[in-house]
Amino acid sequence: MTCPIVLASGSPRRRELLGRLGLPFTVDVPHVDEEAIAQGLVPMQAAARLAEEKAAAIAAAHPKAVVIGCDTLVVRDGVSLGKPPDQDHAVEMILSLGGRSHEVLTGVALVPGEGCAVLREPRAAVEVTRVSFRPLTRAQAQAYVARGESLDKAGAYGIQGFGSLLVPSIEGCYFNVVGLPLHRLGIMLEGLGLKLL
Amino acid sequence: MTCPIVLASGSPRRRELLGRLGLPFTVDVPHVDEEAIAQGLVPMQAAARLAEEKAAAIAAAHPKAVVIGCDTLVVRDGVSLGKPPDQDHAVEMILSLGGRSHEVLTGVALVPGEGCAVLREPRAAVEVTRVSFRPLTRAQAQAYVARGESLDKAGAYGIQGFGSLLVPSIEGCYFNVVGLPLHRLGIMLEGLGLKLL
Repeated sequence: MTCPIVLASGSPRRRELLGRLGLPFTVDVPHVDEEAIAQGLVPMQAAARLAEEKAAAIAAAHPKAVVIGCDTLVVRDGVSLGKPPDQDHAVEMILSLGGRSHEVLTGVALVPGEGCAVLREPRAAVEVTRVSFRPLTRAQAQAYVARGESLDKAGAYGIQGFGSLLVPSIEGCYFNVVGLPLHRLGIMLEGLGLKLL
Repeated sequence: MTCPIVLASGSPRRRELLGRLGLPFTVDVPHVDEEAIAQGLVPMQAAARLAEEKAAAIAAAHPKAVVIGCDTLVVRDGVSLGKPPDQDHAVEMILSLGGRSHEVLTGVALVPGEGCAVLREPRAAVEVTRVSFRPLTRAQAQAYVARGESLDKAGAYGIQGFGSLLVPSIEGCYFNVVGLPLHRLGIMLEGLGLKLL
């Protein structure tokens, strides 16, 4: 495959993860009305739909590129948590995750460029990882949020930073929790004729 | 706690992971006869014992420090795989992991320095993570090994690099697979009075 790759995401974490695959790519950040798109959808549907809409929003400007759209949701008891609006909400969110497990869903959608091979579907998928949190006191949740890595993240934590101290165990793909399920993306890119292994 | 921390490991991956906890520490690399120590032990015992011996080997030179010793084993069907001696062995090792799961064990041992608080045992533990690999053809295993990240690693893969493409799913602590189980280490350091959260 010779199609260029465009990552339709402003997340520095996704950029770093995609970079690990050794592929050249560029970034173009989509602007979509996430609330309107997710309205009335259950989290699995919302993650897929948001990824597709983000990829589609960018694809028009890059007709010959493979565009990768992504959306990550943190879901507790079937409810998507979103990003906390401030530190107090972040503390409550972290506390609500303590001593139990929740799910992280990342939707991934590919739009193949004109002339790109399409060997295999699907071009959209949702990867689910179950994440277990340690039991937490309010003081510990406050200490975590004070580390400053909560506010830009769905669920108010980042597993790759101090958040590693919160998570004894996961079931599923780790990179999915960070925001980009690399194995799943690799399989999908192979379906567009891209040789990664 | 005001005791300095010494990481008894030459692994750049462990150094990077410990750095994420935001603690100051130094590195001193132990030299122990790993084969002699592990002789006759099952992998769980070997991982614990190797971690303890590495920490003990360094502790003598740092009597006032908390010393962290670690050892990571990749275990398939109860047998520890070790590091591959060359690329051909690496390909066979990767192929033997394809389409099934194996365990990664990391032993962690702490030696508290003179005058350090000891609030809680244990000071040694073994963390186990189950890792599932995608099915692999010989050509894919060869392509992975050709990426050059196999030879310095037990089991011939690194989950954090191109190896992410090999692993759809894990059960347990991700950082344990990289070489240092951060949540477990955090709990153990808390037992020495170190406040991380």
